[in-house]
Amino acid sequence: MILQKLDLLHRGKAKDVYRTEDDDLLCIHFRDDLTAGDGTRKGSEEGKGRAAGLISAYLFRYLSDHGIPTHQVEVMGPQDILVKSLSMVPVEVVVRQVAAGSLVKRLGLPAGQVLPRPLVEWYYKRDDLGDPLLAEEHVRLLHLLTDEEMAQIRSLALGIFRLLSQRFKEANLLLVDMKLEFGRHPKEGFLLADEVSPDTCRLWDEETGSSLDKDLFRQGKAPIVPAYREVLHRLGLEE
Amino acid sequence: MILQKLDLLHRGKAKDVYRTEDDDLLCIHFRDDLTAGDGTRKGSEEGKGRAAGLISAYLFRYLSDHGIPTHQVEVMGPQDILVKSLSMVPVEVVVRQVAAGSLVKRLGLPAGQVLPRPLVEWYYKRDDLGDPLLAEEHVRLLHLLTDEEMAQIRSLALGIFRLLSQRFKEANLLLVDMKLEFGRHPKEGFLLADEVSPDTCRLWDEETGSSLDKDLFRQGKAPIVPAYREVLHRLGLEE
Repeated sequence: MILQKLDLLHRGKAKDVYRTEDDDLLCIHFRDDLTAGDGTRKGSEEGKGRAAGLISAYLFRYLSDHGIPTHQVEVMGPQDILVKSLSMVPVEVVVRQVAAGSLVKRLGLPAGQVLPRPLVEWYYKRDDLGDPLLAEEHVRLLHLLTDEEMAQIRSLALGIFRLLSQRFKEANLLLVDMKLEFGRHPKEGFLLADEVSPDTCRLWDEETGSSLDKDLFRQGKAPIVPAYREVLHRLGLEE
Repeated sequence: MILQKLDLLHRGKAKDVYRTEDDDLLCIHFRDDLTAGDGTRKGSEEGKGRAAGLISAYLFRYLSDHGIPTHQVEVMGPQDILVKSLSMVPVEVVVRQVAAGSLVKRLGLPAGQVLPRPLVEWYYKRDDLGDPLLAEEHVRLLHLLTDEEMAQIRSLALGIFRLLSQRFKEANLLLVDMKLEFGRHPKEGFLLADEVSPDTCRLWDEETGSSLDKDLFRQGKAPIVPAYREVLHRLGLEE
């Protein structure tokens, strides 16, 4: 399939979305931009988009090979992925198995504490509100998902987490938590969308516990691309 | 029963708790102090403790008469209530039927929007963390309540809300939302504890929509005691 990128449809915080010659397919372009703290902290680092794009493309293919339905159609280039056009679910799904980030800051859990089982959280995808946490009662109240849809997505998210946690373990990486986004396909139901990369996952070195993800940027530690490249390398990808 | 207040056990933000001669009973004293914004805004107004205490005592008696188990034993004075000693649940329960407060600020709902059905929210009772919102998954993770206990408390909270919403309606007041606290009694199970007053409920005049509760203080509108006295008056109590 040889398709051309056409006009820009949407400029996100770290990715751009382009139309293609096929109305049912879009092209996602991974940029070098980095944001944190609801966009209050911004930066850019050469090679970040390429590393995140390569990692994400590999993991989506891996998930697909293991039975997870995803939006990914094919890789157009290291930073360009051809995907199915979806109606995006306005809820971000976070799965955690180790306390970090908001679980430490909001709830006072000790950083690094292993949870008895993976935790699934819902966040309202609203940049203007800072993507607030939602209880399931809020998801119902806002008519974002039905109970059955929440159950479907929760099950998908836990399956994805289990598969990737195992895959990262083989690369001596601890998958601490990850943010997932889903979209509705008119025929295929919910598909995993967006990306899975060190921009959206917390990955710790299994031995030292050091971060190999966007937390480095959040903590003002530059450059971060070597850490992303280390993830690429450990996954057995090029470089 | 004539019991004496003994030594102070706990000084809260707006109430004090005293030991009594009976180890199973405590005395709650309603102070004139007011706090808002997790204690960042502080004040005091003469007569506030008395008005809140009288309203709360009346509403606890009313709930008890309608089958709700509460901690209240008897009224010792307008600001002093004799209550059963409980093991407090470290979760605050908020019930809402109209969008206000955090539903507007956090989730972007239009202020005053009537919800399709009452919403129950859980907040972690941790002043040091600013009493963060909890999803039910967090309540389980933190071992604060079991699923069965959450179901029991939710059912109690909704029953209380229904009864009080009706009682306030008779007083031409709209019960917008309320914060409830529960405690565990060794023999009687969960009992409604803490207080129910304009310090812990949003009450709007049914016709004008104006606030007759602590929101006046949050918005810097003083004095607030006349509004609390108006609630007393509309409930048919003295003054």
